[in-house]
Amino acid sequence: MREFRAPEVVIRRLAIYLRALGQCEEECESYISSKELGERAGVTPAQVRKDLAMFGEFGKQGVGYEVCNLKEELRRILKVNRVINTALVGVGELGMALARYNIRRAQRQDDYPFRLVAAFDVDPQKIGRKIERMVEIQPFARLTEVLRDLNVAIVILTVPASAAQEAVDRCVEGGVKGILNFAPAKVSVPNGVKLQNADVTLDLQQLAYYL
Amino acid sequence: MREFRAPEVVIRRLAIYLRALGQCEEECESYISSKELGERAGVTPAQVRKDLAMFGEFGKQGVGYEVCNLKEELRRILKVNRVINTALVGVGELGMALARYNIRRAQRQDDYPFRLVAAFDVDPQKIGRKIERMVEIQPFARLTEVLRDLNVAIVILTVPASAAQEAVDRCVEGGVKGILNFAPAKVSVPNGVKLQNADVTLDLQQLAYYL
Repeated sequence: MREFRAPEVVIRRLAIYLRALGQCEEECESYISSKELGERAGVTPAQVRKDLAMFGEFGKQGVGYEVCNLKEELRRILKVNRVINTALVGVGELGMALARYNIRRAQRQDDYPFRLVAAFDVDPQKIGRKIERMVEIQPFARLTEVLRDLNVAIVILTVPASAAQEAVDRCVEGGVKGILNFAPAKVSVPNGVKLQNADVTLDLQQLAYYL
Repeated sequence: MREFRAPEVVIRRLAIYLRALGQCEEECESYISSKELGERAGVTPAQVRKDLAMFGEFGKQGVGYEVCNLKEELRRILKVNRVINTALVGVGELGMALARYNIRRAQRQDDYPFRLVAAFDVDPQKIGRKIERMVEIQPFARLTEVLRDLNVAIVILTVPASAAQEAVDRCVEGGVKGILNFAPAKVSVPNGVKLQNADVTLDLQQLAYYL
């Protein structure tokens, strides 16, 4: 495999292909054509072939791709073929829901890569409680230290807008390399840290325009 | 204002400007320069001016934009200067969290446009319960009928992957024009219906690649 940074849109599609292959596997299909994979992912077969060709040759003319094999290749390319320590910062309603989802999914699916190892909040009433009897909520004051100790790579940020930038700065100090930001605020990260924004209200507003 | 469909990236940025202006208003600022708005939104001042110029002339050389006025203009352009009936389909953890967030935000913020008017689930144990003492959970079997009766424009979809396409089809039958899809599945919508995907696992996987 060539070592290069693929464009974000390609990476996004690879993640969608991976999701589709997981569903194929559940349906016990051994092989899949670029046509079927494209249909499941909502792109053309040519796009599937072009995207995959950036990373190697995975299919056979007339046979298609072996589902299990292509899934493993995509997991390797996307670097999700390993455990990625993940933390939640801000245990409000949304944070709690996302934490529970993550813990349950990891329990159910062996190869789910994101392991929730810590959660943080400022509310003394929440501190010490355990999410799903697994992950204890810790004080925000210990954020940087704990992130570093537990080697957390990704943080899911669900704090109020006013607390977002400070939380991000502390996460970066703690060695975090990726932040999924649900806070309704624009935050900045230094080079070397990747930010993904997921503000639900922005999504709704974008939909409203097209009504 | 010219009547045209602006590119999605521009609409996304307008929604980010609107969010930033809301924060300015809370901080009691009356005017904002394209430089400051750009900083808050994470784009260049030139980008701000170019985006806004697509829709009219809102600022004054040397003075900047009047915060309150520009906010209203953006609300009009984004078509969020009105109440938009919204429903939740699938009241699991994530769905419940999103529903509560929406209801509370609408209670707190007068001009929040998305009014949650209905919620649906298949689980008989959930049906009849009220979210935040406001929105009763109704049977999925009544989805199409209720969406139509209540004139629901946007649906937040938080059902399992296997139920996603059927739910989308029923929503479309019910006259819904926009769907924010949190289900980890690719779904299709007919022309005239706008789909926005918000799969948290895809976001995490995209981050993982860049670690």
